[in-house]
Amino acid sequence: METYNIALIGFGGVNRALAELIATKNSLWERDLGFRLNIVAVSDLYLGSVISPNGLDAKTLVEANFAKGGFGGLSGGSAEADNATVINTAPADIVVEATFTNPKDGEPAVSHCRWALKSGKHVVTTNKGPVALAAQELKALAKANRAHFEYEGSVMSGTPVIRMAKNCFAGAEMKGFEGILNGTSNFVLGRMESGLDFASAVAEAQALGYAEADPTADVEGFDVRLKVVILANELLGANLQPEKVSCQGISGISRFDIEAAATANSRWKLIGSAVRNADGTVTGSVSPRQLPLEHPLAGVNGATNAVSLNTELLGSVTVTGPGAGRTETAYALLSDIVAIHRAQSGNLAKEAA
Amino acid sequence: METYNIALIGFGGVNRALAELIATKNSLWERDLGFRLNIVAVSDLYLGSVISPNGLDAKTLVEANFAKGGFGGLSGGSAEADNATVINTAPADIVVEATFTNPKDGEPAVSHCRWALKSGKHVVTTNKGPVALAAQELKALAKANRAHFEYEGSVMSGTPVIRMAKNCFAGAEMKGFEGILNGTSNFVLGRMESGLDFASAVAEAQALGYAEADPTADVEGFDVRLKVVILANELLGANLQPEKVSCQGISGISRFDIEAAATANSRWKLIGSAVRNADGTVTGSVSPRQLPLEHPLAGVNGATNAVSLNTELLGSVTVTGPGAGRTETAYALLSDIVAIHRAQSGNLAKEAA
Repeated sequence: METYNIALIGFGGVNRALAELIATKNSLWERDLGFRLNIVAVSDLYLGSVISPNGLDAKTLVEANFAKGGFGGLSGGSAEADNATVINTAPADIVVEATFTNPKDGEPAVSHCRWALKSGKHVVTTNKGPVALAAQELKALAKANRAHFEYEGSVMSGTPVIRMAKNCFAGAEMKGFEGILNGTSNFVLGRMESGLDFASAVAEAQALGYAEADPTADVEGFDVRLKVVILANELLGANLQPEKVSCQGISGISRFDIEAAATANSRWKLIGSAVRNADGTVTGSVSPRQLPLEHPLAGVNGATNAVSLNTELLGSVTVTGPGAGRTETAYALLSDIVAIHRAQSGNLAKEAA
Repeated sequence: METYNIALIGFGGVNRALAELIATKNSLWERDLGFRLNIVAVSDLYLGSVISPNGLDAKTLVEANFAKGGFGGLSGGSAEADNATVINTAPADIVVEATFTNPKDGEPAVSHCRWALKSGKHVVTTNKGPVALAAQELKALAKANRAHFEYEGSVMSGTPVIRMAKNCFAGAEMKGFEGILNGTSNFVLGRMESGLDFASAVAEAQALGYAEADPTADVEGFDVRLKVVILANELLGANLQPEKVSCQGISGISRFDIEAAATANSRWKLIGSAVRNADGTVTGSVSPRQLPLEHPLAGVNGATNAVSLNTELLGSVTVTGPGAGRTETAYALLSDIVAIHRAQSGNLAKEAA
């Protein structure tokens, strides 16, 4: 039986949901997965930092209604967040990075991952920034330090599209993909089909908590662009940077466009895609497309995401699943830890042989 | 670089498609997958048997227009099929079983698998019979003989639903599944929506080669029932037998039913499903269901298959892909061989350590 000590960087919705799972599921995981998780540190911009080598009680952590700087009142705690100290010094096997995505340079999350890997700790993350902008460097660092860098939750939350493409499509000859990768813009388009104009649909998405106060990243395609970069690099072995991916969002779509599509038995969707060209290069793009209703992605509604993988031997396979959600995204972190555990168990078997 | 010697049992569409791939893809596989395939034996009821320890030329095998008993004209060949001798004595690492599915007792395919595993050969198969009816015995035999028993193609051809559920959903807590698992019946229902009656739709499916001369297994749900058994046993850890799965096909659906569904914004689909009950038992069933158009499976048209996996932590994830096709099913065999190769490479690494 393995216990993995974990350090949570960021204590917003996702890492809080992971702590909730830990509070109730450890016995089940012991039985079914062969490990349990022990939270030895948490750092959060708002709440502060705490390092507790013997482990923090997950239930207390989740249920205590900490005020700003509240970790300062805990043994081993501080009212100030000190991510560097937590990552470098906490006795963690795995650092769980779930801070905000910075689409410019991925910081400070890239540094969080770098510190962790350099100190020999595994990293699991749901943060698109480090994966889209620094995956090659971080993978090399992981390899050099015999650590794992896993990031299933960076695209489509816990829907296992990255792991599936890697483990289950070898030899199928991946040619490209196209997907609905942003639930907010998909929700907005759906509401426009029901008669709302763009601004009213965005306002409704904000009221429901789907869209942020500044909806630009969602509706202008920038969020999808990062995901296209991640998937193209993972699935097609590309080395794309975001600025090389053409990007058009949905803010230019009018009710007239929506109605014209309906008249033509079709529907607007914001599609992120990439294709391998004849010369081996990979081209990615983000743009609204008018899909016929019988298209496999046309029926993907609301906040659901989907991606169609186009292969030479198997044709097209589409995976549809949640694209967001606290627990669904926390599951991505768990699935990354399962992958680490399985690889570690293999290594242990080798060392014992 | 590994070369796997393979013996093909049955030389119908699927194994012939695998031979076609071998004829053109071995260099690509060497580079991308780390192995090449060498056909050392073929046995087929119609064509006879041939054992060629140095390997048969795949291109010749595919392009030669053999008559009945034609393998008798080859060096090492016989006009009579002798599966037992081929499986027991050919110098094969892997036996590729792709004979017909016998829904009663799985024979002779179960014996083919048994002989192969007992002689220490791996088995890859697209045949539902051995997997639905004898998986526990064959898995135990494989384990005892340090061989692999792989069967991705037994459900949804090469669409990797079995491998995906095993490798990518650990810890998600699988609660059940529901799927469209028979392309022929799905095609027939679609044609009935276009105005054909049941008999005419079946006749069209037969004319197009989707349905066999006796369409019973497809339209009465018996094919789906075997797939429900396979998926329930794999995904939910059940030990179901086909006779325990309630089964109703689509032959009782009238044009009146089809029209009534359309009026209610819904659509008939033949659904195979299983669910884990509160007491831990698993119940499977096959029946036509009237799905609202917004249901994730309602838009799956024609010969395409799909399955929704229902989980506790991740909600529902749907995989949509080809359910049949020569090359698509041959890819399932390739993906099984990739899985064997990866496991073997791990074992070799262990032995070298």
